[in-house]
Amino acid sequence: MKLEKLVGERFKERPADCTADSHALMVRGGYMKYVANGIYSSYMPLKRITRKIEQILREEMDKIDGQEVQFPVVMPASLWNESGRYESIGKELVRFEDRNESPLVLGMTHEEAAVQLVRDYAQSYNKYPFMIYQIQTKFRDEARPKTGLIRVREFTMKDAYSFHTSQKDLEEYYNKCHKAYERIFARAGIPQVISVASDSGMMGGSISHEFMLLTDIGEDSIAICPECDYRANMEAAESIIEYKRTSESEELKLVSTPNQHTIEEVCTFLNADPLNSCKAVVYQRNSDDKYIVIFLRGDLEINETKVKNYLGFDIHPATITEDCGLNAGFIGPVNLKGDFIVLYDNSIKGVNNLVCGANVTDYHYTGLDMDRDVPNAEFHDFAKIQEGGICPRCGKHTITISRGIEVGNIFQLGTKYTKSMNMTYLDAEGNLQYPIMGCYGIGVGRLAAAICEVCHDDYGPIWPKAIAPYQIHLCAVRSDNPEVKAYADKLYEDLLAKGIEVIYDDRNVSAGIMFADADLLGVPVRVIVSPRNIAQGVVEIKARDKSFALNVEMKDALEKIIELA
Amino acid sequence: MKLEKLVGERFKERPADCTADSHALMVRGGYMKYVANGIYSSYMPLKRITRKIEQILREEMDKIDGQEVQFPVVMPASLWNESGRYESIGKELVRFEDRNESPLVLGMTHEEAAVQLVRDYAQSYNKYPFMIYQIQTKFRDEARPKTGLIRVREFTMKDAYSFHTSQKDLEEYYNKCHKAYERIFARAGIPQVISVASDSGMMGGSISHEFMLLTDIGEDSIAICPECDYRANMEAAESIIEYKRTSESEELKLVSTPNQHTIEEVCTFLNADPLNSCKAVVYQRNSDDKYIVIFLRGDLEINETKVKNYLGFDIHPATITEDCGLNAGFIGPVNLKGDFIVLYDNSIKGVNNLVCGANVTDYHYTGLDMDRDVPNAEFHDFAKIQEGGICPRCGKHTITISRGIEVGNIFQLGTKYTKSMNMTYLDAEGNLQYPIMGCYGIGVGRLAAAICEVCHDDYGPIWPKAIAPYQIHLCAVRSDNPEVKAYADKLYEDLLAKGIEVIYDDRNVSAGIMFADADLLGVPVRVIVSPRNIAQGVVEIKARDKSFALNVEMKDALEKIIELA
Repeated sequence: MKLEKLVGERFKERPADCTADSHALMVRGGYMKYVANGIYSSYMPLKRITRKIEQILREEMDKIDGQEVQFPVVMPASLWNESGRYESIGKELVRFEDRNESPLVLGMTHEEAAVQLVRDYAQSYNKYPFMIYQIQTKFRDEARPKTGLIRVREFTMKDAYSFHTSQKDLEEYYNKCHKAYERIFARAGIPQVISVASDSGMMGGSISHEFMLLTDIGEDSIAICPECDYRANMEAAESIIEYKRTSESEELKLVSTPNQHTIEEVCTFLNADPLNSCKAVVYQRNSDDKYIVIFLRGDLEINETKVKNYLGFDIHPATITEDCGLNAGFIGPVNLKGDFIVLYDNSIKGVNNLVCGANVTDYHYTGLDMDRDVPNAEFHDFAKIQEGGICPRCGKHTITISRGIEVGNIFQLGTKYTKSMNMTYLDAEGNLQYPIMGCYGIGVGRLAAAICEVCHDDYGPIWPKAIAPYQIHLCAVRSDNPEVKAYADKLYEDLLAKGIEVIYDDRNVSAGIMFADADLLGVPVRVIVSPRNIAQGVVEIKARDKSFALNVEMKDALEKIIELA
Repeated sequence: MKLEKLVGERFKERPADCTADSHALMVRGGYMKYVANGIYSSYMPLKRITRKIEQILREEMDKIDGQEVQFPVVMPASLWNESGRYESIGKELVRFEDRNESPLVLGMTHEEAAVQLVRDYAQSYNKYPFMIYQIQTKFRDEARPKTGLIRVREFTMKDAYSFHTSQKDLEEYYNKCHKAYERIFARAGIPQVISVASDSGMMGGSISHEFMLLTDIGEDSIAICPECDYRANMEAAESIIEYKRTSESEELKLVSTPNQHTIEEVCTFLNADPLNSCKAVVYQRNSDDKYIVIFLRGDLEINETKVKNYLGFDIHPATITEDCGLNAGFIGPVNLKGDFIVLYDNSIKGVNNLVCGANVTDYHYTGLDMDRDVPNAEFHDFAKIQEGGICPRCGKHTITISRGIEVGNIFQLGTKYTKSMNMTYLDAEGNLQYPIMGCYGIGVGRLAAAICEVCHDDYGPIWPKAIAPYQIHLCAVRSDNPEVKAYADKLYEDLLAKGIEVIYDDRNVSAGIMFADADLLGVPVRVIVSPRNIAQGVVEIKARDKSFALNVEMKDALEKIIELA
C-alpha cells in the first residue's frame, strides 16, 4: 500500500475533545472518524489492527474448543422477555419497533440469543459441554460515551457462551478460558493485564473476573494488596472496618449546628473526628422514587453497586424535596420518620460516641451508640474499600487503589438464563436438568485503544508486532532522486513478493512530514532509503520503539528487513 | 472438529415453511436457526462458509486497490437527512431514537457514511481515485422476508464505494470491478452468474448492473436475447411494441358491456382481440393518494418500476372508491374527468380501432383512434417486456424471460451523494468539483444460499471446494470396532497436523445416519473407514458431487486425501 493513497487524514494538533492519549493519537493518525456520540467509522489502519486482534481471538477460542457462530444484531423483544431483561435493563438497551409494530432490541450482549440457538439441540447430557462464540457488532446506549474507542455505544465484541452439566465442569472450563485470555493479551502485546475479582452486575451469576490493563485513564478502580496479591474491582471488594467502640458511651445529646450541612462541616464545627461520625447517603428506587437512606461512617464513601446488589433493583442518587420527610444535611438514624428503606453499613456496627444528624434543621446529636440507640439495625457491607484499607484476604492495612481499563471479562452465570428461558437436558439418569452457563467477553476496539494507551509516545502509537497495521514502513526520502526512487520501488516490490505487509511512502515531501506520519502509523519497523544512505551504500532500519537502529548494506537489506518484520 | 460435538440439529424432514431447497437444506443441516421474521442465527458450518466467502471478497476487493474500512451499523438521522434519503426511503429504513431522543437509523446501505468518512480527507484531485469497502451487518425492514437467507431483514454485506474525478475514470473502475465480480463468483463455485443491465432504484445514478444466478426460485425476472446476448432485469428492459395502426379508422362507438369488467371479459364479450384493446391500470401516489391512471395495450402488463422512475415518487396499487371519479372496470381515455395523473404507454401510440372503457358503468367504446380521439397524449415506456417480445438491441422477436437471484450489483452513482452532501475537491486548475461515485455490493449470506440453491441434490448441499465448511468429512463406520477407531483416529490427527480442515464422525451410529449427516454437511470429499474396508486394506474416498469414488490402499490414504482436499 502506498501511503499517498491511504484514505484518512493525519495531522499534528491534538483534538480538543480527547482526554485519552489513545483517542487523540487514533484521531490524529487517521484511524477513526467521529460519526455520532459514541459511534465511529474506522479507516483501514484501524480495520487492519482489529482484524488481527479478531484473528488472535478466533485462534484462542478455537483452541479451547469454541465453535464460531453468529447471532443477530437485531433481536425480537420476546427473546429478552423470556429472560426478564427486557424489563430489568435500563435505557442502555435500545428498544424500537419494526414496520409491523413488533418490538425489537439491539443486541448489547447475547446470552438470550445463545440459549435460543442451542436449547433445541442440547437436550441430552451427552451433547455437553460446548462453547459457542461470535465476533459481532453490538450497541449499548451508554449515557456517557467517552475516551474514544474505550467507551463507545457501537462496538465489536468477541462474546462466548459455554454450557455445562455441573458446576465443576463449568469451573474447569472457566479456568481454561482464563488461561486463554492470558494468552490473548500476551499475544496482543499487553502481557501485563491482570485479572481481578469483579461484580457480576446485570449479567447475573456469582463468580466473575475482569481483565484489567492498569493505566491512569482507566474508568475502573482496582483494589490490590501487594502483600497477598488480592485483586478486585473496587465495586466488588469487601470493605473491612475495624471495630471502634470505646469503653464508655456518652449520653445522646442534641446540639445546635447552624448551617453545618456536610459531615465535614459538622465535625469541624463540633471538633469531632469524622471517624466518630455517622453520615447519611440517600438514593431513590428507579421504579417509584422511593427513598433509600444508608448510614455509614463519616469518612467513607458508598459503593453504589453493593447497594444495588443488596436491594436487587436499580437506584439513583436522590433528589431531596422539601416535603419528602428527609431533612437534608441533618439526617440521622434516631427519630427518622417516614416510609424509607433504611440501611446500615458495617462501618458503624456496634460503634458508640458518634456525631449524627438529628432529623431537625440545624441540629445534630452527639453520643450516638448504635447498640443502645438503634437496637434493631442490621449491618451490611455498603462502603467502598479505601487506599490503605484492610485487605479482605490477608487482613493487613495494605490495600492500594489503581485505575484500569477493563479489556475482558469472564462470568460464571449458573442457571440464570437456562432456567428463565426453560432450557433443559436429560441427565444420564433420565432427569430433567438446567445446564450451567459461563460467558466470556472481549471488546475488540476497546482492546485496540487500550493497547495504544499503554504503547505510545508523544508522536504516535507504538503497535506491538502482532497487531500492527503493517509490518514495515518504507520511507523513500527525496523520492525525486531517481536512485532513491528506483531502489525503494524495487525494495517495495520485493517485500510485497515475499508476503510482507508494507506501507510505502514515496511522496515528494520533507523527511520531517514523512517521519511524523510514520510515527502516527506506529509500524514496528521503519526502513529509510535516502540520498545520503544510498551514497553510503546503506539502508537505515529502525524500530518504532527505539529498541534498535541499524545501517544495513543495500545488498543485505531485503533479507535483514524480512528477518526483523 | 468431531461431528459429535458440532452444535446444531440435523434432521430428515423438510420444514413446511421452506419454499426454496437451499432454505430447507440449510435448516435441516444445522446451518441456521430462525430467530424472528427475516432474522437468523448461524451455526458453525454456515459461519465457516460465510467467512470463506468474505475472504474471497476481501482478496478481490484488495486486488482492485480497495481499502477495507468499517462504517457504523447505527447512524444518526442527520447523515441521512443530508442526502435526502431519511425522507425519501420508506419503511425499509428502520428509524428510532436513543435515550436522548436523538433520531438514529440502522444502516441498510452506506453511501452517506462513505461520503462522511472521506469528504474531509479527499479535498484535492491528487487523492483520487480511491475505493473503500466494508464487510458489515446491515438491516433492511423488508415487508416480506422469504426464501431463507435469500431475502432477510438482517444480513452481512460487502459494500464498496469508489470516488473519481471524471466519468471516464469511474467507467474504467466500474469495468475493473465488473471483472472482479466475475472472478468472485467463479472462485465461489458459480461461474455461470451473468451480469444484466438493471434499474438503479433508490440508489440514484444511471448505469447499473446486477449479477444474476439463474434459477427458478429467483425473485427477479431477467430478459435475455439469445441472438445478441442482450440481458436486462425486466424492471429495466425496454418494451418495444410494433406499430399496429390499420388503414381505416372506425367510428368511436358506445357499446353496452354489462358486467364485463376485465379487459379479457370485454374482449371476449365483444369478440375483439386483446391486442386491439386499451386497458387502464391505476395507482396512487404514496404521499397524498392522488390517482395515477396508465393506459396500455390490453395484453401487456405494467412495469411499476418504470412508472415510479418516470414520476419520480413512490406509488402503490390504487384502492378505487365509489366517489373518486373513476369507474372501475370501465376506465378509458375519452371523457375521463377528474384530477388524475394520466399516462400513456408506447404500446398504444398511434393505434386505432381499439376497445376501451367509456367511463360509464357497463359501457365501453369501440373504434378508439388514439391520434384522433386523444390528440394530446404523450407516450412513454411503462410496460413489461414479454417472453417472445422484441429485443431492444437486435430487434428480433427473441426475448426469453428467466428467473434469477441477484447475487451482486454495481452502480454508477454520479454526483447524487457528493452534491447533496457537499463533498468537493479542488481540481488541477483550482476549481471546486463534485467527485463522481460508484458503489458495489454483494450480500454474503444470500450468496451462500444462492450457491446452495444451484449446488445440491435431494440429500443436501454440494458445496464448492472454495467455500465448503470443511475440506474432508471423515466417517469411522462402526467406531466400536477398535481397528476402525484406531485407524480413523490416526488419520484424523494426521490430517489436522497437515492443516486440513476435517470434520470427523466417530459416533457409534449406523452408516445410514452417518452418511445422511455427511450429505447435509455437503463437504466435497468424504473418507470412509469401515471394518469391511479395513479387511480389504483400503479406505474409500468419494466426492460429494459423485465425480469420483476411489478405494485407496490404507498406506497411501493420507497422501491421496491431501491431494484431493
